[in-house]
Amino acid sequence: MDLVQALLSGHRRALAQALTLVETGGPQARALLGALFAHTGRAHIIGVTGAPGAGKSTLVTALAAHWRRTGRTVGIIAVDPTSPFTRGALLGDRIRMQALSGDPGVFIRSMASRGRLGGIARATGDAVALLDAAGFDLVLIETVGAGQGEVEIAAAAHTTIVIEIPGAGDDIQAIKAGILEIADVLVVNKADRDGAEQTVRQLRAMLSLADLPVDGWTPPVLTAVAMRGEGIEAIATAAERHLAYLRESERLTRREQERAERELRLILQETALERVRAHVAPSDWEALIAQIVARALDPYTAANRLLERVLPQSGG
Amino acid sequence: MDLVQALLSGHRRALAQALTLVETGGPQARALLGALFAHTGRAHIIGVTGAPGAGKSTLVTALAAHWRRTGRTVGIIAVDPTSPFTRGALLGDRIRMQALSGDPGVFIRSMASRGRLGGIARATGDAVALLDAAGFDLVLIETVGAGQGEVEIAAAAHTTIVIEIPGAGDDIQAIKAGILEIADVLVVNKADRDGAEQTVRQLRAMLSLADLPVDGWTPPVLTAVAMRGEGIEAIATAAERHLAYLRESERLTRREQERAERELRLILQETALERVRAHVAPSDWEALIAQIVARALDPYTAANRLLERVLPQSGG
Repeated sequence: MDLVQALLSGHRRALAQALTLVETGGPQARALLGALFAHTGRAHIIGVTGAPGAGKSTLVTALAAHWRRTGRTVGIIAVDPTSPFTRGALLGDRIRMQALSGDPGVFIRSMASRGRLGGIARATGDAVALLDAAGFDLVLIETVGAGQGEVEIAAAAHTTIVIEIPGAGDDIQAIKAGILEIADVLVVNKADRDGAEQTVRQLRAMLSLADLPVDGWTPPVLTAVAMRGEGIEAIATAAERHLAYLRESERLTRREQERAERELRLILQETALERVRAHVAPSDWEALIAQIVARALDPYTAANRLLERVLPQSGG
Repeated sequence: MDLVQALLSGHRRALAQALTLVETGGPQARALLGALFAHTGRAHIIGVTGAPGAGKSTLVTALAAHWRRTGRTVGIIAVDPTSPFTRGALLGDRIRMQALSGDPGVFIRSMASRGRLGGIARATGDAVALLDAAGFDLVLIETVGAGQGEVEIAAAAHTTIVIEIPGAGDDIQAIKAGILEIADVLVVNKADRDGAEQTVRQLRAMLSLADLPVDGWTPPVLTAVAMRGEGIEAIATAAERHLAYLRESERLTRREQERAERELRLILQETALERVRAHVAPSDWEALIAQIVARALDPYTAANRLLERVLPQSGG
């Protein structure tokens, strides 16, 4: 049985193998994703983001356990873009495994790789596609907030849950402004701590100031104590309501169009670069780099010359 | 006088105009950067990163003022990748302007744009090239830490200064592990606060555990109270020593090669995509996207078909 068939039949080892393949990228990964593409588009893809220490792993684990109790299957991708060289995501993964291990309706994968051209966001989008094709009802993407990464990753999700904790200082306000614009559901976790109500009020105030569409979705601000499983069901329900809203308002179609266009552009870039490289001998490539370093040739002229060799200016 | 000549002659309005052009990207921006490329490679490029509230703006402003006193000119690029839609970088910019305004030896630019293909890291690299070509002795890139963005931006710098503050909790440790690997100089700012010495000790302990090259550079851990200008000179000196180390160890050359290769790849991707798009009528492009959304065509096959039209598989 080939990898595509094995993955579609629900073989976990095939899925794990496919995930490793797309983490690396390249022609083989693209062929696999191309073959699986027709089987994607079924899963509800949910991004969960928040600052370090906000309790993302715990909340994601509790959400997964909740959805499992309702009979739905859950794939989890834990992205750690803060760890470029070390595989920092592995520890959280192991802790989580203890809670969900042995359940064939859950699949967990940590990604800390940035080796891939196009970055972690690209690898994450492809991993989501694999879990989607493998038939998981929900795919949760967990990522650290406060950077460009999680905004790009949010773009791969239908629903983005942003986690805050009580008592985050004024310094956080600037970040919140950016984060709020990607949040579909806001959660104040560790709500048994002092200042939880104030944080809820602050977030609601910021939302009321934000320029939200009049007839659109107003992100609910919910509280949770994920460690004790409190508030989890309400978060799950809010996420489900958000997907229903996307469907009814036809925003789902628009998101799908935007995602398809972004994908196509990225794949075009990746493939074009590979083809150009296949035309250039390694020694020629190195000679070009040396000329650029010496400022004898600018990289724009170099790129044009390389493209002239394989890609005509007009016609086709 | 054209834009290239005006920028090389030190006209500030030409520089501002050129920066706007490269923030948007496209063929015009590439032509400008190509024409200026031979004039780059002189500036010492320094990245300054740290969590929100670490005092980056204040420290960058103090460093700039220090270098101005020694007669050197300073360009500053303040990157705010946390603010995708709002121009969040503008406030900090305005505060800083008060300290450095009116000095023709300083140029400050905020960037919050992500509109550009290739993202903020790409736009930042190009902005650095403009300030470098315009003759600034130092170019400081200020960016929020804790994500993928600042690591990519650090790749554009010769020297990366990472700012910590006393008393950051254990939750921060995971991030530090990633951040430490990009740090050439570590600064514990707000060192008049409780716990500063402990944070210094922690950072030194983490460095001693890190896998640093035996005969290489050991990042110094310095303290500062940037608000009062304390510790600034030592930081500036450490940055200068780091550049000298890069030169002597020939790591500068290696970095330049890596940067040139990354640049060339990105420019190739950008240019190839534009050329493909120029071959495809907008209605055909939209039809392709619709087919992808309907799962009637996968984006990998779509990309291959588009490339077949303009880029042969072999020969050239």
